[in-house]
Amino acid sequence: MPSSPPHPTQDAGATVGDVGEAALINRIRRRVPPAPDWVATGIGDDAAVVEPARGTLDVVTTDTLVEGIHFERSFFPAADLGHKTLAVNLSDLAAMGATPRVAVLSLVLPAGMAAADLDSLVDGMLALATRHRVALVGGNITRSPGPLVLGMTAIGAVRRRRVLTRGGGRPGDELWVTGTLGAATAGLACLRLEPTGSAVGHTDLAGCVERYRRPDPRVRIGMLLGRNRAASAAVDLSDGLGDGVRQLALASGVGAILDASAVPIDEGARRWFQTHDLDSLDTTLAGGDDYELLVAVPRAHRRRFAAISRLARGVPTTRIGVLTKDPSLVLRTADGERALPGGYQHFQETGDTPQAR
Amino acid sequence: MPSSPPHPTQDAGATVGDVGEAALINRIRRRVPPAPDWVATGIGDDAAVVEPARGTLDVVTTDTLVEGIHFERSFFPAADLGHKTLAVNLSDLAAMGATPRVAVLSLVLPAGMAAADLDSLVDGMLALATRHRVALVGGNITRSPGPLVLGMTAIGAVRRRRVLTRGGGRPGDELWVTGTLGAATAGLACLRLEPTGSAVGHTDLAGCVERYRRPDPRVRIGMLLGRNRAASAAVDLSDGLGDGVRQLALASGVGAILDASAVPIDEGARRWFQTHDLDSLDTTLAGGDDYELLVAVPRAHRRRFAAISRLARGVPTTRIGVLTKDPSLVLRTADGERALPGGYQHFQETGDTPQAR
Repeated sequence: MPSSPPHPTQDAGATVGDVGEAALINRIRRRVPPAPDWVATGIGDDAAVVEPARGTLDVVTTDTLVEGIHFERSFFPAADLGHKTLAVNLSDLAAMGATPRVAVLSLVLPAGMAAADLDSLVDGMLALATRHRVALVGGNITRSPGPLVLGMTAIGAVRRRRVLTRGGGRPGDELWVTGTLGAATAGLACLRLEPTGSAVGHTDLAGCVERYRRPDPRVRIGMLLGRNRAASAAVDLSDGLGDGVRQLALASGVGAILDASAVPIDEGARRWFQTHDLDSLDTTLAGGDDYELLVAVPRAHRRRFAAISRLARGVPTTRIGVLTKDPSLVLRTADGERALPGGYQHFQETGDTPQAR
Repeated sequence: MPSSPPHPTQDAGATVGDVGEAALINRIRRRVPPAPDWVATGIGDDAAVVEPARGTLDVVTTDTLVEGIHFERSFFPAADLGHKTLAVNLSDLAAMGATPRVAVLSLVLPAGMAAADLDSLVDGMLALATRHRVALVGGNITRSPGPLVLGMTAIGAVRRRRVLTRGGGRPGDELWVTGTLGAATAGLACLRLEPTGSAVGHTDLAGCVERYRRPDPRVRIGMLLGRNRAASAAVDLSDGLGDGVRQLALASGVGAILDASAVPIDEGARRWFQTHDLDSLDTTLAGGDDYELLVAVPRAHRRRFAAISRLARGVPTTRIGVLTKDPSLVLRTADGERALPGGYQHFQETGDTPQAR
């Protein structure tokens, strides 16, 4: 092969530019475990070929992480980047009640990125993929003239009439949220103030930083919600609780009342917000990146939902409000009622609250 | 909505940063035609939900165009960018023998990009999507700190035992190529020399520039190849003919002999290469972005393949070589035989030939 480069040495200092595209693809292929038998064609052809699960619909989502917008490489270990790229997509599938199956990965790489970092990134992704039985079946690699851009499309399966959209909520349905909120916002804000992470180890912020870097998508709860039809609607909280409530209410053609005192703010995050003179509630409502689920539950299905909560393996669920016929979005606090603040809007940086993305 | 921006004015000068994410999504939704009835949930939820075509496998591909690597906005009209983002993905599906069905779009947008350009980009994409009955069912929008990055995943359908991989070629199979080659390489090189395109209108390079900007994916031929099983293997020529032959031969565990005089070099491109002292054949072998198909055809299926060529509506097909048991890749010219040069390698810029991507 006269036009090919000399065989790359895999020393620690090699960059992805040194290694070259074909060798990078081989490097990734070698790390990927054998595909399940319903993957007819995996990595290495023009496209992947996948057998749909019998009697199910395909659920398709895509999400992209951009250096300088969603993360800085200086405070984001490559393995965590790989984990998060998949996690944010699995969160979207969970919010639809789907079981994840396959993913394809688009890598836009600065030529100077260390090849070892790409290995770590792929390994971090594959560790999460294995945990949730997701097969990485293809992708694309190209050079970047600037930022590292990680794009992923994930495909899941859901049975007919088990799809959980944003639009099925009805007046009177209760609003529930999984896990705790605000931790990712505090974690990112902490990393921005102290990129070296020197303070992280000896405060309770370690948990917040972990939540920002390695969110745990609610795959199991999402699958259970899809199967037992406990919920009328769901949305993932990638852009914050305020945004999630707004999206679900808008799609369902209803309003909502949120009980401020019920919002499960992460304790470490709350302390960090207080120390930095930030309103814990407003910061949590606006902060994205939590990847918890907001779920609307008809009162008649409360017992079904409680059964899911018991099966959710330690992930708490908290009732935080109710959907209303009146289309207003209301936050009920000890001081009275006010309009619900929004979530994170891409393209807008307000500058007065730490933004997770 | 106290935290929301004032309603955006849609004047010609607005940027995507002015408009904001939620309004951009609405703007795109309004442009998308009604989805076919097998799309259960389209744009606007956490994920799209799609009913698989009965008795088929899902074929999944992803490809990304990056400003500064694959294109410059200065010489790439936004509508053409939208067209090409979809076209390169449809080409991959065609190479698998698949019928395209749905696509999701990842937009990484510089805040200063004109909102009207985004409208044009989406319209250019949708025009091609409509032509091939592809439904845009979802996507993702985020800010870019630098380049415009356009990512797409397309999903098609193919019947069991009709999948066309790279790996089915056998010694003795003939190698055929669709259309003509080299045009996109000449078109890009011309645009790089004269970004204003002033010379394009009054030379035969207009066709080459068009081929670079608006490649016509071989969707129909790909579908026909999948259906009538005329071919043993196929690959799309996104990274050049040299690369395509190498990939197909490698995956099939065979070698190949290419007849140099048979390679269908685009006439406008050939004149441009000659004017600029470039070897037409070597430049064509190395140049990517043609999005033609390379197809291996068993001799016994030659008549079936000829039938496809007749149905291909004016797209010529040309026999350019043969697969061999000997694993060498050989180029047979009037001066004798030599090793086949490679195609385009991402991350490597040779500097001596114009590179399409």
